[in-house]
Amino acid sequence: MSAMLEAGTSNFAAIDAAVARSYGAQVDYAAAPHAVRSTLLRGLADALGRDAASLVALANEETSLGAGRLNGELARTAFQLRGFADRVDAGIAARTVDDAAVAGAPPAGRPHLTRVFAPLGPVAMFAASNFPFAFSVLGGDTASALAAGCAVIVKPHSGHPELSRRVHALAAGVLREQGLPEGVIGFVEASREAAVHLVSHPDVGAVAFTGSYQGGVALWKAVNARARPIPFYGELGSINPLVVTPQALTQDVETPAATLAASIALGCGQLCTSPGVIVVRADGTGTRFVEALARSLAAQKTHAMLTLAMHRGFERATEHIAAQPGVVTRLAAQAGSDDADHAPTPRLFEIDAQSFVTNAALHEEMFGPAALVVRARHDADVLDVLTVVEGTLTVTLWGAEADTPANRALAAAAQRIAGRVLFRGVPTGVAVCDAQQHGGPWPASTQPQTTSVGYAAIERFLRPVALQDAPAWAIDANRGGATV
Amino acid sequence: MSAMLEAGTSNFAAIDAAVARSYGAQVDYAAAPHAVRSTLLRGLADALGRDAASLVALANEETSLGAGRLNGELARTAFQLRGFADRVDAGIAARTVDDAAVAGAPPAGRPHLTRVFAPLGPVAMFAASNFPFAFSVLGGDTASALAAGCAVIVKPHSGHPELSRRVHALAAGVLREQGLPEGVIGFVEASREAAVHLVSHPDVGAVAFTGSYQGGVALWKAVNARARPIPFYGELGSINPLVVTPQALTQDVETPAATLAASIALGCGQLCTSPGVIVVRADGTGTRFVEALARSLAAQKTHAMLTLAMHRGFERATEHIAAQPGVVTRLAAQAGSDDADHAPTPRLFEIDAQSFVTNAALHEEMFGPAALVVRARHDADVLDVLTVVEGTLTVTLWGAEADTPANRALAAAAQRIAGRVLFRGVPTGVAVCDAQQHGGPWPASTQPQTTSVGYAAIERFLRPVALQDAPAWAIDANRGGATV
Repeated sequence: MSAMLEAGTSNFAAIDAAVARSYGAQVDYAAAPHAVRSTLLRGLADALGRDAASLVALANEETSLGAGRLNGELARTAFQLRGFADRVDAGIAARTVDDAAVAGAPPAGRPHLTRVFAPLGPVAMFAASNFPFAFSVLGGDTASALAAGCAVIVKPHSGHPELSRRVHALAAGVLREQGLPEGVIGFVEASREAAVHLVSHPDVGAVAFTGSYQGGVALWKAVNARARPIPFYGELGSINPLVVTPQALTQDVETPAATLAASIALGCGQLCTSPGVIVVRADGTGTRFVEALARSLAAQKTHAMLTLAMHRGFERATEHIAAQPGVVTRLAAQAGSDDADHAPTPRLFEIDAQSFVTNAALHEEMFGPAALVVRARHDADVLDVLTVVEGTLTVTLWGAEADTPANRALAAAAQRIAGRVLFRGVPTGVAVCDAQQHGGPWPASTQPQTTSVGYAAIERFLRPVALQDAPAWAIDANRGGATV
Repeated sequence: MSAMLEAGTSNFAAIDAAVARSYGAQVDYAAAPHAVRSTLLRGLADALGRDAASLVALANEETSLGAGRLNGELARTAFQLRGFADRVDAGIAARTVDDAAVAGAPPAGRPHLTRVFAPLGPVAMFAASNFPFAFSVLGGDTASALAAGCAVIVKPHSGHPELSRRVHALAAGVLREQGLPEGVIGFVEASREAAVHLVSHPDVGAVAFTGSYQGGVALWKAVNARARPIPFYGELGSINPLVVTPQALTQDVETPAATLAASIALGCGQLCTSPGVIVVRADGTGTRFVEALARSLAAQKTHAMLTLAMHRGFERATEHIAAQPGVVTRLAAQAGSDDADHAPTPRLFEIDAQSFVTNAALHEEMFGPAALVVRARHDADVLDVLTVVEGTLTVTLWGAEADTPANRALAAAAQRIAGRVLFRGVPTGVAVCDAQQHGGPWPASTQPQTTSVGYAAIERFLRPVALQDAPAWAIDANRGGATV
């Protein structure tokens, strides 16, 4: 750890103080008209936009992700904040379900019941390393929690500390301008031990986390060890199988190979939706596709990884995969690429489906620009491969558009393990919209019924409450001034 | 354990076989037209109705709950099955959210995304002791899981073993009549160890549990120890504060006292919504109310508890409360009432608010006909009492209907800790409808965003999946023949 980081690391007392500020802010923020939320969200988006050039420059210094990508990410983050604002204005947090009283004895007779949705905050929000804007201080978790009426306590990622401080300072300025307490968006730099203290704090109401399996599981365990466990929304990793059926290769192998190679290397492979397992038929066309993929991947330009620890982790993960019985290395590290100051070169490995199915070590994520090709003899092999993956953010099915029994079985197997199933394109790139689902069975998400991208993400931070025979003011108090 | 129970206890192999049958049934049941689900749900309701007289007689033998209550409960269970059937026909499990493709670069450009809802099953369902119909073999958890397209593996409660077998035999008959595989509603009697084996089985997709804190936490821990944890929906206990404001006692103390006493003693207090903490102002009217409550409670007729273990647990819990510093016993056990063959007599205890707030031992549930009166000096005391309760199925607020700052603060504090907030009546009795919410922060529920009563209970067993650029057949495959 650098001296800078040590100096910035909050001790337990600082965390307690931050939680107290956010807990104090929670009641008034939740009770305020919902227009306060949407005005705040738009103010944050505007502030990001105003300082875009300097923020992107700082982000690039700290992450090496490149100005092009970072400009796009900042735009997406502002778009997302405004999108939540629009939905708040449309009443997303003011929904009610009303059942009028019915005279008579149960089961048909009943009192008047109104289902409303109450915020769960304050929310402890753990920023990710790989999206310094979109999954960081003012990213999707913060935006959805604020939209739900929750104060947020941001734990920034140590991979971009100065950027995090700058963005939080911007946010604090917006809160001041709008007359809102600073606790609405708290900020605590925290060691691992301090992070456990944060999620164990009795006044924290929910936790959102995007990051490594190891880090996420440690926090999840701490939450479960509380006297009263709270909701923990963690996105912990994913291998994102992509199935290349023979139908996908009838025209050409080069174009799909180039598309896939670009997706594997995008952001130096540091994306939660990076395609890590490529299922290809064990036939001649499949072999030509794998050769084209290796060539195209070798030509991809990568950049330095986010942190030294991640680079080391990537090298360890690829060595571990390469050492498994039956694994053939199709694209090895180039000389010097394991030097932490340099960009790692892409890697490609290959294994037969039966070996993949029976060796759990092959189901682990390589976080970085690498993929494992799995050669399937027939449809049953493909289904077996998907079944053993068990939990993933995405499955992509190329060439499965025709309505055939085989494709129906493939789609069903994909849906069973994934939060998102694609029939075209690549899984990297996650649109922010109402229909999006970014989650999936463990370890893709610790709460597979929820999403961390898209507007349904707000549901994580709202808890239904049934009001029975309530006076109108008690119902309206949950509706933030909504008149519809 | 009786010989009968030992003989009925499934070993691990029997559990594996039951899971295999339900896992095998899951794919076809989920993929079948949704009319198959609603027809099944109605067939089960009809079967309960046909055999009502003999089922109620058997239930009464095993539970002592009385024919009146049991007839009502059976009617409610059939009503609930039909209610889910109606909602399945109305498309509750066929919902989609569709975002059309938008040309252009992100963040505004996007592919076509359709959010569908896929069943999580098979579901391991643990029946409760205290509702031998409504929270048992064909109770709300089973009904909502079947409506969601999930096969169910029922683990019956040992408190009513013959009834459980009879009801399962009825269900198996309905499955046969309708040409559905027996695995759609599996049944395994299981020891505690075997229950852990069941929830640890890799082919089980979710768990629903209603019962004791101790039993629920043991299963929740087993689920969290899986290689891939799955959703665990547990309802583990609740103390259901009821606040009697001075405004509630301006007319009369006798009538509200009698109403409350009847609720405390209902079902011999063996209801998860039984009011266990009664907050009363420390003034003269409050004292008259407490005296009237003690008299009325003493006059309540109780019946034997569900099991010997529960009776013993009730005696232990009341002795534990009675022994806490500052606790005054207002209504003690009558001679012989701790004899397991007899009905326990109701108990009433009293404590001041400050002592309640600082002694966590007083926040524990007494499962049986007992309540603890907490005397509050002022509004701030009442808020403190609610705050330390932290998690409960219900809070009832009597005399808080006027729109005053004090009542707004009370309603907000109640909503923060409860799944349901009542402004009139008593918390016992939970209407089955769309707006119902039966849950709440831990330990009321392990998943406070979900409900185990009412039609929103189906959401526990559906997982959203975003289909990207999907052909129409892949979307329709999730809609069970819905045409709207």
